[in-house]
Formats: sequence, C-alpha cells, structure tokens
Amino acid sequence: MNTELLSLLPFWAELTQEEKNTVAANAVLCKYSKGEIIYTCEGNCREKILLVSGQIRAFMLSAEGRELTLYHLKGGDFNVPCSECLIKPMNCEIMAEAQTECVMLEISSFVLNSVMERNIVMKCMMFRLAFERYRIITEALQQILLTPLEQRLAKFLIDESDRIKSTLLKTTHEEIAHEISSAREVVARALKKLSLEDVVTIRRGCIEITDREYLRSLAS
Amino acid sequence: MNTELLSLLPFWAELTQEEKNTVAANAVLCKYSKGEIIYTCEGNCREKILLVSGQIRAFMLSAEGRELTLYHLKGGDFNVPCSECLIKPMNCEIMAEAQTECVMLEISSFVLNSVMERNIVMKCMMFRLAFERYRIITEALQQILLTPLEQRLAKFLIDESDRIKSTLLKTTHEEIAHEISSAREVVARALKKLSLEDVVTIRRGCIEITDREYLRSLAS
Repeated sequence: MNTELLSLLPFWAELTQEEKNTVAANAVLCKYSKGEIIYTCEGNCREKILLVSGQIRAFMLSAEGRELTLYHLKGGDFNVPCSECLIKPMNCEIMAEAQTECVMLEISSFVLNSVMERNIVMKCMMFRLAFERYRIITEALQQILLTPLEQRLAKFLIDESDRIKSTLLKTTHEEIAHEISSAREVVARALKKLSLEDVVTIRRGCIEITDREYLRSLAS
Repeated sequence: MNTELLSLLPFWAELTQEEKNTVAANAVLCKYSKGEIIYTCEGNCREKILLVSGQIRAFMLSAEGRELTLYHLKGGDFNVPCSECLIKPMNCEIMAEAQTECVMLEISSFVLNSVMERNIVMKCMMFRLAFERYRIITEALQQILLTPLEQRLAKFLIDESDRIKSTLLKTTHEEIAHEISSAREVVARALKKLSLEDVVTIRRGCIEITDREYLRSLAS
C-alpha cells in the first residue's frame, strides 16, 4: 500500500515503523459505485478508515424509512472506525451512500485494534476523533430537531449553490429531502412556496435560484 | 477533599500520587437546590466532574423553549467535563436541572487540563468518556426524532413506575413533557387518550397506571 495514501491517516505519524508496516501490509482499497449503500458499522471484520476519493453522505434510517443526514465525507477524510474496542455496546445504525464513485481504504478490525491496544497515543487520538464525530452527529440531529424546515431548505440551496458556484442546481426533490432529512412531499411543498414567492424557479431536474439575497436571509 | 469521594472519579486510579494531590487540593464541593439550573458547559473556570449526590437531568433548549432531555445523572456518576482542551470548537448548549438537592464535585479547568496534558492514560480515558457521553446524547436525540410520542410516553410511565416501585406516579404534565422532550399540551392530549382507553387514571398531581400490561406493550 502506497505510503502517501497511508500518511493521510490522522494517526499515521504516531505509529512506530513496525506498526506502520503492519497497517500497510493489511490495508486494502475498495471501490464503491455511485448510489451504493456502504454500511459504515457492519460489525464485520473490515474497518473503512479513509475515504480516498469521492464523496459519501452518512445517515440514519427511521422506522418509516426517512433518512436523517448526519455528515458528509470527501476525498482525504478520515472515517471513524467502528472497531469493537471503540464502540462495544452500540446499536450502530449509521449508513453511508456513495454520492459519487468512491474508493475507501479498509483494514481488518483485528489489526487496527491490536495496533491501538499497543499504542496509547493512537488510541487517545481515535477516541478524540470518535468523540468529535459524535459531536458533529449531535449537532446534525439538533439542527433537524430545532431548525424549521424552510430554514434548512434555504440553507441547503445556498450552500449547494456556493459549492458548485452556480445558481442552477441539478438536483431532485428526493435528493434534497435526503440531504435536509425530510420527506419528498414536504420538500415539494416548500419549494412550491418559494417558487410562488419568486425566490426559485423549478424546472425538470433542476432548481434555479432567482432571489439569492432573500434565500440567504431565510437561511440564517 | 475526602479521598473516598475522589476515588469515584473514573480516572483516579490512573493518576500518580502527585497528580492525586493536585486534584485533591483543587477540588471543591458545591450545592445546588432542587429545580436549580446548572450550566454544565459554562465556559467558566470550574468543571463539574462528579455528581456526589442527588439527581440531574441534562437537556438542550430549542428556540421555542422546548426542552430536549439528553440524559440523567445520579449520585456517584461522572459528568464529562467541558474543558477547553476536550471540546474547543463547541457551541455547547447542554444545561442540567437539579431534580433533587445536589452536591457536585468541581475543579478548576486549568488544573484538570494541566493534569490531562501530562497524563496520556487519563487523557485517553477522558476522550473515551466524552465519546460515550455523546453517543448517549445521539441515541436520545435519535429516540426523540424516530420514536412516536405515544411510545415515548408509555415508556416513561413504565420506567418511572419501575423506578419508584409503584403504579401511582406523582408528576405533572409539565414534568413529563420535559422528560420525553415534548410540549405540555401534547402530553395532556396523549394522557387523555390513555385515560379514555382505561390505561391510566388522571388525578390532580398524579397519574395512576391501571393497565400496566397494555402500557408495556405500547412502550416497546
């Protein structure tokens, strides 16, 4: 395994040469197609510790099939592993969707755990990263619970427009619903309202932002 | 400070004698009255690291003043500190209500952080505890988002009845609303429905569970 890639792991610099060799010898690259569901906590024997390229959206699924979006990862981002030794008693239900074609760096849980148990600095870092990840998840759930839908929708449209540097967003109501953790019909209704107010224009498969300033004020 | 009390701190056994002396010399006990609001993350200079006696309920407040209950602590429970070095970039909005008279063991953040920076085992443990606390918060928020109100209410009534070993619960609609993260009117409506179904009897200031088995089936 390519050392340049491995050096993207946040704990890489904390490993001894022997530990680096162990990780390198046991790491593999796995490809996922666009749209594929990646179980980030499968309880299986491989940890998906780094998103090498692509973009994924992590979410939880409600009983009624509603998706609660928790966070996104892009190429180079560390993915907190679900190693048994990190999160034993958890009913982990975090799934991820490959939003583009993705490549992940994966390593056996057994190897990862054995390195962690020998290297306290790495272990400490893993818990810090896990803690930070869960803080982000908490904030996402807090947003879903406490921020009105209209505001979440406006914020998503503004952020997406900033990201792609265009006011023309190629997206469906379904995709927006997933991103802002709502239902398609609710999003359709809210977009209709924005379109009647001349804030957006809805076309087949895309949405054009026509009053960016007003949308921005709704978002904050 | 009493060593027996300090030994309840989960990291106590990991400290050197010198570190133990530092913690002991800087720890103080603080009393809170029933109903008092305790800001667990005040950004001030004292960390509330142990609930010595009493019971507290931690919650977040929504913009509309709705309380989202996150977890409870009882006497002897460790309270994850909000030390600057643990959670730097956080907009921490976790508050706690003293549900009974409470005594907390508190220590200066500066002292706690300086011990943590010298003792990697303790630091690792603090991150693990912070991570576990946030997992519990995540699960609580997930419950609020994904579990229907009726089920949360039934579960609360059953749990409370198990806790006090009685079918007669002395509680108000307001208190129940806080505990299950809902609004008083919504709880009143749901209790009315349960009372029409002869599952509970509502009296002034208390609720009697009359059909425990049915209530239990609703809760699960």
